[in-house]
Amino acid sequence: MAGESRQWTAALLVIGDEILSGRTQDKNVAQVALWLNHHGIRLSEVRIIPDDIGRIAATVNELRAAHDYLFTTGGIGPTHDDITVDAIAAAFGVPVVVHPVARKILEHYYRGRPGGLTDARLLMARVPQGAELIPNPSSGAPGIKIENVYVMAGVPGIAASMLEALTGKLEGGLPIVSVTVGARAPESDVADLLRETEAANPGVAIGSYPFFKDGRYGANFVIRSEDGDLAKRTGDELSSKLREAGYEPVEGGL
Amino acid sequence: MAGESRQWTAALLVIGDEILSGRTQDKNVAQVALWLNHHGIRLSEVRIIPDDIGRIAATVNELRAAHDYLFTTGGIGPTHDDITVDAIAAAFGVPVVVHPVARKILEHYYRGRPGGLTDARLLMARVPQGAELIPNPSSGAPGIKIENVYVMAGVPGIAASMLEALTGKLEGGLPIVSVTVGARAPESDVADLLRETEAANPGVAIGSYPFFKDGRYGANFVIRSEDGDLAKRTGDELSSKLREAGYEPVEGGL
Repeated sequence: MAGESRQWTAALLVIGDEILSGRTQDKNVAQVALWLNHHGIRLSEVRIIPDDIGRIAATVNELRAAHDYLFTTGGIGPTHDDITVDAIAAAFGVPVVVHPVARKILEHYYRGRPGGLTDARLLMARVPQGAELIPNPSSGAPGIKIENVYVMAGVPGIAASMLEALTGKLEGGLPIVSVTVGARAPESDVADLLRETEAANPGVAIGSYPFFKDGRYGANFVIRSEDGDLAKRTGDELSSKLREAGYEPVEGGL
Repeated sequence: MAGESRQWTAALLVIGDEILSGRTQDKNVAQVALWLNHHGIRLSEVRIIPDDIGRIAATVNELRAAHDYLFTTGGIGPTHDDITVDAIAAAFGVPVVVHPVARKILEHYYRGRPGGLTDARLLMARVPQGAELIPNPSSGAPGIKIENVYVMAGVPGIAASMLEALTGKLEGGLPIVSVTVGARAPESDVADLLRETEAANPGVAIGSYPFFKDGRYGANFVIRSEDGDLAKRTGDELSSKLREAGYEPVEGGL
């Protein structure tokens, strides 16, 4: 590796009965993971918990202490089940206040819309005291940043636009580069070869992800490293070994 | 409610660098959640952690103590990154042994296939001492049950077939019934109405899930209860209130 670099880590807390009931398929884990990787921050843990103030507050305090960054998704809308702001405030031991800029944003957003800025909509201007805002280009109501905690919407499109607004603003390390090689090999046939290739290349991790497609077994082998050249060289080495073993490697994966 | 019933809970531990890197979209959370609900067991927590023996073992011990059941997915294949069995054994403080029945299953499965039962494939017969097997109708290598911990494959199709094999075998309570009512209402317009409806019907929880579709705002309101009749009555009540407020309710959701 090109020198040791500090490894930055983040946790993601998904707040949502709808995910735990199986009603809604989560889409935030993957998009937050990819965004973090781009910033050289490793997603080190995800938790999904119910809409419960006590559990949210306790989990926030555990995760914000254990990682450089904590992201949360869900529970910041205008209805009675939106309790994330109160839970975060409880975690930090601060009161909830109406943020004057958030109020202005909502006044502007709802000007001319039926009903205007109702009491329910004004709930979306509430933040834990001391918090900053994360812009929300897609639907007005902002996200919230307090210390190392980033509080975002649960609707994936809105969470995406909040991530977009944060792009380039977080300190991180080197992004992890990954090189994928696929083959129509049952992974059990190439297990030794994978182990040897990983052992011969300190600084890389090789993951093996099997599948069954078109009536045949196959696997994708993902080589990850902070050192892009090393990942590339290891990928070439793995491809050669697969070819020697009688499997045609497919760069980029199957 | 028709009498209080004991609430059974489960946690799911997803073991997988590929999920945390964003490379793979998780599909096991939703399918395990739905399967558990069918059995009257509530999925109360999900964690996604990296392929790290120490972290897996510690998390397994935390979650198996806190819930009636713990399910894990991922890391039980034949390659060097498949470390779940070792981690579970470490969590229970028992050695890893080759399970004679699992060995027979694999011998049978690989008879006549190229290579036969190689050393790598035999790794899939390793279990923590004292464990039972979970049949795997789709690809031979079985899952593992030890005390209240159910260890399943990460490939969603294989995890599904292991769940299928477990259907009807776990003790649970009353399944949660959910009734969904949708409306082209911005959720901030109906926040009071939702809060009142939930408060007037003890034993139900109402979730509000907004969306933006076809250029218009809308939301689905999900009423959940162990009492199916109560959920249905509350859904009817909510529909009436939405209609009074000028929104056409859509039973079953939008």
